[in-house]
Parts: sequence; structure tokens; C-alpha cells
Amino acid sequence: MTPDHSRFMARALQLAERGRYTTQPNPRVGCVLVRTDGATPEIVAEGWHQCAGQPHAEINALAGVDSAQGLTAYVTLEPCNHQGRTGPCSAALIEAGIRTVVYGMQDPNPKVAGQGLQRLHEAGVDVIGPVMEAQAEALNPGFIKRMRTGLPLVRVKLAMSLDGRTAMASGESQWITGPEARGDVQRLRAASCAIVTGIDTVLHDNAALTVRAAQLELPADEAAAAAAQQPLRVVLDRRSRLPQGCRLLSLPGPVLLVQNQPLTYPDAVARVETLSMADQQSDGGDLLALLQALAKRECNEVLVEAGSRLAGSFMGAGLVDELIVYMAPTLLGSSARPLLQLPLANMAEQLRLDIVDVRAVGHDWRITARPVARDS
Amino acid sequence: MTPDHSRFMARALQLAERGRYTTQPNPRVGCVLVRTDGATPEIVAEGWHQCAGQPHAEINALAGVDSAQGLTAYVTLEPCNHQGRTGPCSAALIEAGIRTVVYGMQDPNPKVAGQGLQRLHEAGVDVIGPVMEAQAEALNPGFIKRMRTGLPLVRVKLAMSLDGRTAMASGESQWITGPEARGDVQRLRAASCAIVTGIDTVLHDNAALTVRAAQLELPADEAAAAAAQQPLRVVLDRRSRLPQGCRLLSLPGPVLLVQNQPLTYPDAVARVETLSMADQQSDGGDLLALLQALAKRECNEVLVEAGSRLAGSFMGAGLVDELIVYMAPTLLGSSARPLLQLPLANMAEQLRLDIVDVRAVGHDWRITARPVARDS
Repeated sequence: MTPDHSRFMARALQLAERGRYTTQPNPRVGCVLVRTDGATPEIVAEGWHQCAGQPHAEINALAGVDSAQGLTAYVTLEPCNHQGRTGPCSAALIEAGIRTVVYGMQDPNPKVAGQGLQRLHEAGVDVIGPVMEAQAEALNPGFIKRMRTGLPLVRVKLAMSLDGRTAMASGESQWITGPEARGDVQRLRAASCAIVTGIDTVLHDNAALTVRAAQLELPADEAAAAAAQQPLRVVLDRRSRLPQGCRLLSLPGPVLLVQNQPLTYPDAVARVETLSMADQQSDGGDLLALLQALAKRECNEVLVEAGSRLAGSFMGAGLVDELIVYMAPTLLGSSARPLLQLPLANMAEQLRLDIVDVRAVGHDWRITARPVARDS
Repeated sequence: MTPDHSRFMARALQLAERGRYTTQPNPRVGCVLVRTDGATPEIVAEGWHQCAGQPHAEINALAGVDSAQGLTAYVTLEPCNHQGRTGPCSAALIEAGIRTVVYGMQDPNPKVAGQGLQRLHEAGVDVIGPVMEAQAEALNPGFIKRMRTGLPLVRVKLAMSLDGRTAMASGESQWITGPEARGDVQRLRAASCAIVTGIDTVLHDNAALTVRAAQLELPADEAAAAAAQQPLRVVLDRRSRLPQGCRLLSLPGPVLLVQNQPLTYPDAVARVETLSMADQQSDGGDLLALLQALAKRECNEVLVEAGSRLAGSFMGAGLVDELIVYMAPTLLGSSARPLLQLPLANMAEQLRLDIVDVRAVGHDWRITARPVARDS
């Protein structure tokens, strides 16, 4: 009986989701093995990729059966065909006797796309797909963008009042969003390979920008696994003003300082990497170079958690894939600070957005928007 | 058999809704008559108040049966006990032989609340209620507020970009919201007794502020009935700058100019009423006096469609019940004009809101928020 591909691929997508906070820099991938020779097709094994350096989804699924002879494998991403830290999955599937492979999407790296499928095909395996391609792509927006373009996916996260303000003119600010929104931001951080901020945010808020297990609002084991893998914290600190005793340095996790003069406290240098850049914050070109450098470090999803100036620079330079705005139920008034420092002179310059999601997060509302290319 | 009160009251509430755009200055009221002596209770007649000067809901429902002897009447608002343009409904229900009256809410006028119910009770009618009181109150927020406080319900409608801006700094603006949002505004206008604006909006946009049947996106007969009853357009025009040839004057519907010097073109005076006020826009006290004057003219729901300055004055004076913001998917940038001209110095002054509704309206999002009292 021909199985319902969507049903089994949907399950594989669910499994892949379990790696949301832990597979980076690898993609999130899920796999189910289905027996199709009975009256109704049934799942006999499941697997997902859990953590870089550990087995891929296909290998984890194959480990769940004594024999995979004649089974169908549903896998959200084309099985790999290269020898990485684990062997090529295409070979493992062939060797195990898998008869049919249904895949969600091809490998996003244009240089290797289709090679795994080709090898399966040449070995006599039936290859079907792509199936539920959009959903499969949604699992790994950053990995896919990096493979295709050499740049990470960039999300800019901001918190504002209903009237689009982030703090008072004096600089006075406080949490305007509630604990649920802050938990949501924690999960955004945990899904990111890097958090980018400006030195002013670190100086003003003593921001640590770490993932805290207790605030993730996830099952304890998932939270612990997510927090065990802290994202790279990137601070644009041109004039090396990062204070030695700040929380950013004292809390665990890697730090990258983007600067053009050395730190004055050599003891701390062992704790941080540095990247030399000219005049980052005012120049979209330097921000692009930074993103390219992060992609080279295998950063898939980058979260910008910065003030309105740096966030506005990213937006103005056209480097943002997703704007995530937490809107608090309050008015801060017309002299308060803007959402983005982004002066535009006329309506023709407006930056049009596609609002893809709006939802309540506690008493706040989260708005997810994607910039629309100016030409369209 | 005891009927399910909620089921029949829900139907009466639905009927009342049909008067949304046409009953003003009267409340929206619905009524169903139910026969309860059979195996299952059943509705035998329905009515709703359609238009001021025409029969009340109870009378319209009674007209649908030959005999109302022994029936139960569900009515969303306590039956009236006074001789208005139509006779008291309490007397009509008694005379018709109604056995039981189930009501949604008492008369909101504290001076007469309960008198209709009392009269029914004294005549031997069983009186049950309130039933679904919150829903019954939601039908007539403006009427209820006016009866209880001598002030109309005030809604402020604004359109903004995601970053909380309404127009460019130069004053350049254009529709940033789509046709669905504009249709929604038309329905807001149609439900309102008065539209309040400032002279600058009339001068800048040549705004007519009328209800246009074709833009209501309602069934043709409902749209025609709604547009036949234009809300009072109130223009704060202290220095009498309203130009003689403007659309506001040339399109049908009543106009009230709030000013402190007479118009210079006496021909037009016959078309408009005037109200003398000192220095309206800068003084919350004058806005309060205006609202009191509108309540005296039996305005239930007042819609402020003005620029950020007048809207900000209403908000700053604490005179707003509901803020309705249409958020367009665009960024106008940090030098563009604010949502509300409302300078606040510190976080303690922020105006907290209760966001009661967020929904997509075409490509835009409509946010409905109510100011939270500063003490709470």
C-alpha cells in the first residue's frame, strides 16, 4: 500500500524540531523509518540529529531496528554524501537495505545538492521528493541561507511601546515587556548561533546576553541541553570600552569583540576572541563583513539585540531577514526614543514589510516582519 | 421545561446587533418571544430596535404574534417605563400577557434603573436577570457611559507604521493602510454619533469624514440605512479657517464648528452649527466641555479622527476610552511624525494600556487598547 507521504514527513519534521536549540552549526534533521509491506504502513523507528558531532538523524533511526531491509526512510533533508565527523548517510541507508527514500528538501549547498540523492538512486533506491519542502526549509532558515549565500540569517529583536518607543529621551528605561516575552527572547537566543550587540547596550544595561536554562520555559532536560551550548556573543566595541568586570565577561559562553584597538586588560584576552574592523556601527559595509565573518564561523542564525542605533544600521543596510518586535501595552510618548534610528526623508524611502506573524506573548504582542525588497 | 436562558438571550443579542449603525441616539436592543409550554422551548417571534423614532425591540417582537399570552420575553435591556416617542414597553409586555421577562442588563440611567422591572414585577410578571450582562453591556458602550456619566464614549482612531509613525517630518503623507482598513474605519464612523477632528486635518487632507455606503462593505440595504444617518462632524476650528469650498461642507451630513470667532462667509452658516469655546486644542478642560456638549446632544459614541496633536491632547487629558490603531506593514523611520503628540518626561508618566483586541484587517493590523487608570 502506498503510504501517505505527508503524514510520515510531518512526523519527521516534528522530530527535527527537537534539535532546535542544539544542532548548530548543523541543520535540524528528522527521520522516520516506515514498513510499507503490511496492511497499513507503520513507523518502526525514529531519529533526529541532536547535537553536532553526534550521529545524524538517519543513523539514529537505523539504530532503532534490527533490520532496515525493504523499509522506507522519510528524512527532512537530503542524506549527506560526505565523510564528516560521521560517515555519509547515503551510504549507511544503502548498506542497511532501505528500499525507498522520501526527502523533504535537497541539500541547500548548491555545490553538493543532489549528490546524496544521486548516490541512492545509483544504488537502486527509489528516491521521492521534495515532500513538504516549505516546512522542511522552515526548520533551517539560517543554515539554508548560509549555504546558499555565505551569510547567516539575521533577526533583529526589539521591544517597544504601542507608540513605537523603546526608552525615554533621558535614556531612562526599564523592562517594558513582561516575563513571558523575556522567556520568548531566551528561546530566540538559544536557537541562535550568535548574539550581536553594541558596546552601549553592554555599558548601559550590563547585559550578559546568555541563555539561562531557568528562563527558557522548556522541559528541564531540553533547557539544560540548550543552555549548555551558549551562543557566541558579539560586541561591537570599536574603542575597546568593555569593562573588565562586566557580566558579559563573567558569565559562561564565548565572546567575540569587534574592535580596532586592543583591550587594556590582557588577563581577559584569553577569555575572548577579537576581530578587527574599521568603523563598524556607522557603515553597512562593515556590518556585512561582520556577517560574512560569522558565516565563516558557521553561524546559521544571528540575533541582533542592540539599541535603536545599531539595529537601525542593520535595517538601513538591508541586512535584516526578520524583525521581531515585542510590543508592550503602554505609551511612552512622542519625546521617547525611537524603535530604530533610521532617518528617512520621504515616503518613497519607507521600508515596506511583510508581517508574517502576530501573537500574544503574555500581556505583550510579538510581531514578526520581513523586509520587502524595495524593487517589488 | 425551563428554557436555556443563554441560548435565547444570545439570539436577542444578535438581533440587537442589527441596529449597530442606525439606532443612535437610542441603544441597540433585541428581543425574542419564546413559547415554553411545549416539549422544547421555541422562539415564536423576534424584534429589534431599528431606528430612533421607530418602535422599540419589544414592540417589534410583539407584532410578530397573534397572542403573547403566557410567553417569555428575552430582551437585552430592561424594558423602558417612560412615555417617549413610543409608549412604555413594560406596559406593552404586561398588556400582551407576557408571563416571564428575562433581561440582559438594567437601564444604565441610575435614575430610572429597575423601574421597568419593578412595574413588570408588580403586575405579576416573573422577572429574571441579568443574563449575559457583559455581552448586553458590550452592545451599547457609548449609550451606557452617557447615561452613567454624562459623557460619550471616546474612541481615538489612528493609522501608523510598525515603528509608530503617521507621516514624514515634512508633512508628506499618503494612505499607509489598505482598503480593508479604510472600510473598517467607515464602519467605525457609521457606529458613531459624532466624528471629531481638527481644522488642520480638514485643511491638509480636505477630509470629508462622511460615511460612504459603497465603502462600508455591508449588505446594500444595511449600508444604505447606515449612510442615510450621517454622524455629526465636529471640527475644532478656533480661528474659523474652514474654507468655504471644502468637501466637509459640500458633502451631506450635519457639521458643528467649535470656534471662538465667527465664520467669514455667512452663506455657509445655515449649513453648520457653531459652538463657542476658548482655546480648545491645548486644554483638556475645553475638550471635556466639548464632550459634555456632545453628550447633551445625545452623542453616545464619539470617534476622534485627528492628527497626532489633537489625538495626543485627548489622550493626555485622560478622555479616551479606546485607542484604535491600524498598523501598516512599513517603517517610516525615526524622523517621521509620532503617533501621538504626547511628550512624557519619565517612565513613571507612561500611559499603560490594556490591549483588548489585535486582528488582521487586510494587510494591516488593528490594535484596540484601553487606557488603564494611573492608580491601578
